[in-house]
Amino acid sequence: MEPKTIKKIGVLTSGGDAPGMNAAIRAVVRAGFYYNLEMYGIYRGYEGMINDDIKKLESKNIAHVLERGGTFLKSARSAEFRTPEGRQKAFDNLKKHGIDALVVIGGDGSLTGAHLFYQEFGIPAIGLPGTIDNDLSGTDSTIGFDTACNTAIQAIDKIRDTATSHDRLFFVEVMGRDAGFIAINAGIGSAAAATLIPEKKMPIEKLVERLKARKKAMKQSNIVIVAEGGKSGGATEIAEKIKKQLPSYDIKVTILGHLQRGGSPSSFDRVLASKLGVAAVEGLMQGKYDVMAGIINNKIVFTPITKAIVDDKEVDEDDFRIAKILST
Amino acid sequence: MEPKTIKKIGVLTSGGDAPGMNAAIRAVVRAGFYYNLEMYGIYRGYEGMINDDIKKLESKNIAHVLERGGTFLKSARSAEFRTPEGRQKAFDNLKKHGIDALVVIGGDGSLTGAHLFYQEFGIPAIGLPGTIDNDLSGTDSTIGFDTACNTAIQAIDKIRDTATSHDRLFFVEVMGRDAGFIAINAGIGSAAAATLIPEKKMPIEKLVERLKARKKAMKQSNIVIVAEGGKSGGATEIAEKIKKQLPSYDIKVTILGHLQRGGSPSSFDRVLASKLGVAAVEGLMQGKYDVMAGIINNKIVFTPITKAIVDDKEVDEDDFRIAKILST
Amino acid sequence: MEPKTIKKIGVLTSGGDAPGMNAAIRAVVRAGFYYNLEMYGIYRGYEGMINDDIKKLESKNIAHVLERGGTFLKSARSAEFRTPEGRQKAFDNLKKHGIDALVVIGGDGSLTGAHLFYQEFGIPAIGLPGTIDNDLSGTDSTIGFDTACNTAIQAIDKIRDTATSHDRLFFVEVMGRDAGFIAINAGIGSAAAATLIPEKKMPIEKLVERLKARKKAMKQSNIVIVAEGGKSGGATEIAEKIKKQLPSYDIKVTILGHLQRGGSPSSFDRVLASKLGVAAVEGLMQGKYDVMAGIINNKIVFTPITKAIVDDKEVDEDDFRIAKILST
Amino acid sequence: MEPKTIKKIGVLTSGGDAPGMNAAIRAVVRAGFYYNLEMYGIYRGYEGMINDDIKKLESKNIAHVLERGGTFLKSARSAEFRTPEGRQKAFDNLKKHGIDALVVIGGDGSLTGAHLFYQEFGIPAIGLPGTIDNDLSGTDSTIGFDTACNTAIQAIDKIRDTATSHDRLFFVEVMGRDAGFIAINAGIGSAAAATLIPEKKMPIEKLVERLKARKKAMKQSNIVIVAEGGKSGGATEIAEKIKKQLPSYDIKVTILGHLQRGGSPSSFDRVLASKLGVAAVEGLMQGKYDVMAGIINNKIVFTPITKAIVDDKEVDEDDFRIAKILST
Repeated sequence: MEPKTIKKIGVLTSGGDAPGMNAAIRAVVRAGFYYNLEMYGIYRGYEGMINDDIKKLESKNIAHVLERGGTFLKSARSAEFRTPEGRQKAFDNLKKHGIDALVVIGGDGSLTGAHLFYQEFGIPAIGLPGTIDNDLSGTDSTIGFDTACNTAIQAIDKIRDTATSHDRLFFVEVMGRDAGFIAINAGIGSAAAATLIPEKKMPIEKLVERLKARKKAMKQSNIVIVAEGGKSGGATEIAEKIKKQLPSYDIKVTILGHLQRGGSPSSFDRVLASKLGVAAVEGLMQGKYDVMAGIINNKIVFTPITKAIVDDKEVDEDDFRIAKILST
Repeated sequence: MEPKTIKKIGVLTSGGDAPGMNAAIRAVVRAGFYYNLEMYGIYRGYEGMINDDIKKLESKNIAHVLERGGTFLKSARSAEFRTPEGRQKAFDNLKKHGIDALVVIGGDGSLTGAHLFYQEFGIPAIGLPGTIDNDLSGTDSTIGFDTACNTAIQAIDKIRDTATSHDRLFFVEVMGRDAGFIAINAGIGSAAAATLIPEKKMPIEKLVERLKARKKAMKQSNIVIVAEGGKSGGATEIAEKIKKQLPSYDIKVTILGHLQRGGSPSSFDRVLASKLGVAAVEGLMQGKYDVMAGIINNKIVFTPITKAIVDDKEVDEDDFRIAKILST
Repeated sequence: MEPKTIKKIGVLTSGGDAPGMNAAIRAVVRAGFYYNLEMYGIYRGYEGMINDDIKKLESKNIAHVLERGGTFLKSARSAEFRTPEGRQKAFDNLKKHGIDALVVIGGDGSLTGAHLFYQEFGIPAIGLPGTIDNDLSGTDSTIGFDTACNTAIQAIDKIRDTATSHDRLFFVEVMGRDAGFIAINAGIGSAAAATLIPEKKMPIEKLVERLKARKKAMKQSNIVIVAEGGKSGGATEIAEKIKKQLPSYDIKVTILGHLQRGGSPSSFDRVLASKLGVAAVEGLMQGKYDVMAGIINNKIVFTPITKAIVDDKEVDEDDFRIAKILST
Repeated sequence: MEPKTIKKIGVLTSGGDAPGMNAAIRAVVRAGFYYNLEMYGIYRGYEGMINDDIKKLESKNIAHVLERGGTFLKSARSAEFRTPEGRQKAFDNLKKHGIDALVVIGGDGSLTGAHLFYQEFGIPAIGLPGTIDNDLSGTDSTIGFDTACNTAIQAIDKIRDTATSHDRLFFVEVMGRDAGFIAINAGIGSAAAATLIPEKKMPIEKLVERLKARKKAMKQSNIVIVAEGGKSGGATEIAEKIKKQLPSYDIKVTILGHLQRGGSPSSFDRVLASKLGVAAVEGLMQGKYDVMAGIINNKIVFTPITKAIVDDKEVDEDDFRIAKILST
């Protein structure tokens, strides 16, 4: 497509927050400045676009945000943006400020909004994958995923201390929505006895069998990682089922919860977010619209948003195999 | 009391594990070596004493344990030790090894065991306060408490990132059994909107009022710390009650759980455990039996175990006042 | 002294920054709001007082600063404040804003400034001990000290990994100016082979002897902690001397440096800073001027600034003894 | 090549240690057990092979090592292994134990040893890239590199706190030998004012210019990352040159040093090491000898050791461009 001339870019974060969103915003804004563009922060996602919660950003707004978790632009869900009237209001506000392009950082819902908005109003929009769940195609890793994995294993390291001291069996539930990416990494990375992910059904009997085999092999502590979106239920449900079959085990459950969403981003996420932030601005300048910027095989790739959302990225079969080899 | 001549000391950890227990064990053993004593590790607490799970410790056994969470001697509850027969078996095992004194690291239950054992068999025994709950008299701080506070605030820092990004209200439940020490420190240390501790009843109405006042003052995120042993219920119960009165709030709950028990001990806990470990050995050599070694006002103090357990240490009224001043 | 009526308090940080300064500022400001006072931030210490770099603080200025290292009010050295003319200019600026009391957070130099200023202009001033060095009397622990100790041991934990993998001897230099507080805590807390502090001269021969004894005892890695202000030189000098006497050792040096000054404050420092911040405001309201607020034996204590600075706090003899027992 | 039947595998770590080596050893051993092989630990690298410091490994030897920095098999340099006589002695020891294949974890020197040994004695050998420097071809990332980057940015985050509080200019030296990988990641990940890497010569004048431009733009703190292997010298030398040209700047230097080699491995390194450990064993079973296992574009790849060492991996030109865009 023949690139339009872009002078003012608006940037927003939407959906669940993820560590590295601030680093991405900073990179977008700083790249904009590098190319002499005016940069606008749209606060609270699409909600702020509708409510004209929009401010011109200066260098000082992005000082010392790179290393902070969360998103200083804040995030919110917007029911109104799902209506044509809401989107019209949002578009009018962009026009008012002269904003002629958008960078949207978020998960599939957020990118869908950008796509819809582009389709309806033709405003150049590019998406960045910001979610701890890593459930977007078009990128090997989403912004926030690596940090969430680190947060998870560090928490599990602490849990292992107490599990081992007491010869206990722990069920630890990690986030990831319908995807098992955090779980499989946490499982491999924390020497878990087993990892239950939504992509693979593991019958309770098989889990019982493995736990018994480990007891025979004198392994005294056991940690089982359970992805929140698993078909057999969360950590609490699984633990209850196991308890019935292995009543002599000392079983505990920890649900890591929202602490996985926060924290200072890891080196990997800071670098990823920084690269993608620059790519978003350069992509817009080159006429790449309605796409998501990602990194595949170490290269920047622009994938149509519709494809980035629809495609089903799944935990690699080989990762699952390795988790199994290492846990038995 | 005229000190008996001590040649072999047994050391054990019992009850819930706490970060710094390893540092305490190491200090006990190393101090023993310094004074040319033989040192024995009793594994799995009183259970191991009964089952003769006892090994002579050498320098290599305590290498690189100081910085590790948990307890390499392991911990367990022992029903059998509560019976006279169990204790007789335990005593016979000590005699078999020639162990003539004991250091017991743990909470009130563990120290009670040491007291009982001393009363019945006259074996010199000294206790060290090892619990994250800080609910023992006879010491300003128990081993593990400072680490647990740090673990809690670091987790809450992460939760605050996401709370702020979404203008949410979080209820975070911390450990502490019947004591609010972790909660009050976490509350002050994480700028909580309110802190609910077992020692103080806070009516739901008052909490609702404070949350409303904060909304008026434009504070966008709110974290409420809930001690697990609170009379009004845990974080989940409180959150449900608040939800009914403030239905428009976006409310989430996180129960930090067992990760508070693990982790590499903080500097404070390493130093505290090291000092108390040396004090335990020197105390035994000076004829201080049936006491717990603690630090009060920066000085080593030996308190009769019966007193260390019975007395009720409570959250300082002034700490509660300060938490209130800083949260409104 | 009959307390003056105070309506506007100015707060500043001065000298070397320390983790927890932000928490202290926040507590001062929030306590001021609690008592319906107007609060002013004086930026860049006394330099900002002279240059009228003074702003009225609102609630939003202190949001999300508690958990951050450094000082958002910034710090600077001021040569001009050491002159009567400089101090007159500073005083005129305070008068201009109607500021009728001061809270100064910093080390001995900063508190001296407050004292001098109070003597000359009679402006109610209270100091808070903010320094990682812990070298102020009138408080058991200064704000930032506990965090610096934690930063040090966490860094040394990493160094130990590599020391042990290679059977190396490491000399690690920690901060503390003329005081050995960080060093002695780091020494005890990281199982150091030896700890060299300014308060105690350790002849090189004795250190050589101890290292040889450890080699005999098959201890394969060795970490020696060196306080920066030691009389025998820093880590580099000591290492060179040892190298000459033990040429077969694989010796490395790490100077931890300024990373010890930063970082999110520990739980202990957050709570300490919070309590002292409230105490400062309440102290001013009660007519406590020209004093430093500290915590001694778990109680708030106000010590005349002249005494807090002059007195020589030294590493406890018993701490040194314990470090020795545990390292041999 | 027709795979030989392998029954006993020896594993060793050699050269500078790196976080994740323990995770790699564990994965090698556990994969061996999975395939019913006998596994031997060769202690202290090639030195231990020569000195017969070799032990059969059991499950308990690799319990709780995955999360620990360093290498429990220890590492050492061996002058003797560089001689044919030394290698003959080493080979004889392997034969004595019946070890019929090797996994060598380390950097280029370590892999060269494996290659030589394979050439001379035909013993199946596979290498794994274990070094924080990331300077090996045949893998996108070496084991330990991601952890070192995280350690670096976390240290720099702390330094930034104090840099910002005092409006200072810091020169921070990071490791990486002749490669700028840690530096460029740390530079992007910590919002550095400039990053000096061996691969790119940056004249002092250009650096001075950039620092001046930043001062004009009111950026108050500046962090310059310097790779240790830079042609213009280390952080100390650069700082001295800058000091002469910008005498009014408050300049400090921190050399991060060996703490970058230690620490619990990151999630990324744990997973990478785990996958490569399994790949090494499966590779040997499939007849892949004299190669290094790595991950390129998310796929396991076996590269001839001679190629993995000789090829020059360089910092991506685009990474350098992005660092520049984001720092100006």
